[in-house]
Amino acid sequence: MTTPLPESPAPPEGSAQSLGYVQAFTQARLVEFLAARQEEAVRIGSQFAEVVAELSAFVLGSGKRVRPAFAWLGWLGAGGDAAGPSAGAVQRVCAALELLQAGLLAHDDIIDQSDLRRGEPSLHRRFEAQHGRERWLGHGARHGEALAILAGELAFVWADDLAAEGLDAVAEADRPAFRKAWSAMRSEVIGGQCLDVFAQASSDESEEAATRVIRWKTASYTVARPLELGGVLARADEALLTFYRRFGDDIGVAFQLQDDLLGVFGDPAVTGKPAGDDVREGKRTVLMALALSEARKAGTAQEQALRAAFGRDGDESVAEVVAMVDRLGARAHVRGRIELLRGRAAAALDAAQMPGEAKAGLAELAASLLS
Amino acid sequence: MTTPLPESPAPPEGSAQSLGYVQAFTQARLVEFLAARQEEAVRIGSQFAEVVAELSAFVLGSGKRVRPAFAWLGWLGAGGDAAGPSAGAVQRVCAALELLQAGLLAHDDIIDQSDLRRGEPSLHRRFEAQHGRERWLGHGARHGEALAILAGELAFVWADDLAAEGLDAVAEADRPAFRKAWSAMRSEVIGGQCLDVFAQASSDESEEAATRVIRWKTASYTVARPLELGGVLARADEALLTFYRRFGDDIGVAFQLQDDLLGVFGDPAVTGKPAGDDVREGKRTVLMALALSEARKAGTAQEQALRAAFGRDGDESVAEVVAMVDRLGARAHVRGRIELLRGRAAAALDAAQMPGEAKAGLAELAASLLS
Repeated sequence: MTTPLPESPAPPEGSAQSLGYVQAFTQARLVEFLAARQEEAVRIGSQFAEVVAELSAFVLGSGKRVRPAFAWLGWLGAGGDAAGPSAGAVQRVCAALELLQAGLLAHDDIIDQSDLRRGEPSLHRRFEAQHGRERWLGHGARHGEALAILAGELAFVWADDLAAEGLDAVAEADRPAFRKAWSAMRSEVIGGQCLDVFAQASSDESEEAATRVIRWKTASYTVARPLELGGVLARADEALLTFYRRFGDDIGVAFQLQDDLLGVFGDPAVTGKPAGDDVREGKRTVLMALALSEARKAGTAQEQALRAAFGRDGDESVAEVVAMVDRLGARAHVRGRIELLRGRAAAALDAAQMPGEAKAGLAELAASLLS
Repeated sequence: MTTPLPESPAPPEGSAQSLGYVQAFTQARLVEFLAARQEEAVRIGSQFAEVVAELSAFVLGSGKRVRPAFAWLGWLGAGGDAAGPSAGAVQRVCAALELLQAGLLAHDDIIDQSDLRRGEPSLHRRFEAQHGRERWLGHGARHGEALAILAGELAFVWADDLAAEGLDAVAEADRPAFRKAWSAMRSEVIGGQCLDVFAQASSDESEEAATRVIRWKTASYTVARPLELGGVLARADEALLTFYRRFGDDIGVAFQLQDDLLGVFGDPAVTGKPAGDDVREGKRTVLMALALSEARKAGTAQEQALRAAFGRDGDESVAEVVAMVDRLGARAHVRGRIELLRGRAAAALDAAQMPGEAKAGLAELAASLLS
């Protein structure tokens, strides 16, 4: 059965592959979906409707919409027609990726005890603030976490509902491949996060552990699987899906390595986080795994100095680690690896068989992620 | 498209409607699904596979399978054939309800800071114990909660995957009604939990608030929606669905009211919880709402005494509240209400048009819940 969906307005001439267009339709699809859910929530209870409103503000308020963009470009790249009858369905699937992301972020901020998300209060802090304003009973932080856990659950189940709504409007033959990838993607990102929690707890220093986290938590979830999800909805052939997987892994890993560099060397004015944030937190990244491995080779004194300063808060310790990571060559090594991945991805993109617009869109999106 | 599923063995003669049969096939379907996911998890990382193993033990270890039983009986009641070709699909949907329940419980135990679940360590405590055994870095309780949040996410998304697997094998025309009810059920139970969190925090004493929580957190989620989910898969007519809704609400509310009585008057040897557990926690139930309302009518001294003792730990306070709730007539009132609901549900069941076996199964299940 094909469910009729409201028509999707055709994109302005020549902009179907732009991030701006993806951001616009993702927002529109989310607004439409969340408005319907808001009505349902009122029926259940007005305080629940407030939770939904807070979650909606969180979802709609910010986010670059990177995952929807890769899914959309994966679809265009496989011949999807942005002005055709399936576009609305694919846009819903793209928007579903952002709901899933909101659920993951809401929970991740509880796990990491983060007060801020993209410069705004994290979801559990927003609920905690209400507790304070109303002078309610009990522990405000716990109250905030409780509601953010529940709001995150909502985002997870609604992501599935929205993806299913989109899927209803595509040919039945295209659904199994989609569902397989959708299912794998969700297990992979949650799996990657579990590995991350273990790596921090067990202070696993190996590059292998850090690489595994990058692969599942970022590369697959952010780039490779979204490309595949879009691709299968336009019946991409095996060659194109293979390209998506490789390109996705390369760009996704490069993106995370770049993020690791920013976590140590980034300018607070640009990153919106304190300088050397990852150093203060003692975050186990590929960059730090390399630095520790180099320090070990360089001898006991170096290794001890790096270990002593890493994960300690305080500007001096941070400055010391930053300098050492640079001096030990880990920064240059990671930079080189990013260049290698970027170059390989660009060459593969060049050789890929896909419409020119989609190709240009992918090149642009990859460049903006790695700039 | 209809995906072939492994055949479901026919139930032993005359037992298709029994709770024992539901428990057996639910377990079998969960084992089969989780084994496949375990393989996938190994590919992502061995530590993730350990999380999956812990989650699997949690899901498979206990639980009465009440929700699967109502879904199954809803299906049989609408003419579903336990030995027919759709039985396997319906069993998957039933098992999906238990995965969803596991996710909700894992998160609920974090919210309530519960150490135990059905007499065994709660999921976050299991992960915390591993942290202790391995002498890992950081805060053990936080580590346990982090992994239980993530394991709960897995249970949520896998519940959707398993329901979708089942749904794939039913006629396409039956899917939209199923998905609508599945979606509403998930929003309702999460909504009911949000309302519960607010009621505790704002110490809302109204019977209305407590009734709303019961309705969404228990009645709809545990009985009415599962019956409907089973019903629509066998194309139940409007009359039967209306019966399911009313019967489900009545039995569901009665079940929760019974649970409220046990929370105050229950025998620890039977409930597995300390005597007067709800009193110690200051839990806002319909029973307590009624008691407070009666105390208010009885005058300031009574009201003050009840308020002073309610929510205070200590055997004397608990004994005082227990005696007052009884004396004020709240216990008798709630008992009367349970009887009323039970009687109304039984009469409606008597009059309902459904196969005799399913009817007997529903009567038995309702009786076992309210015994």
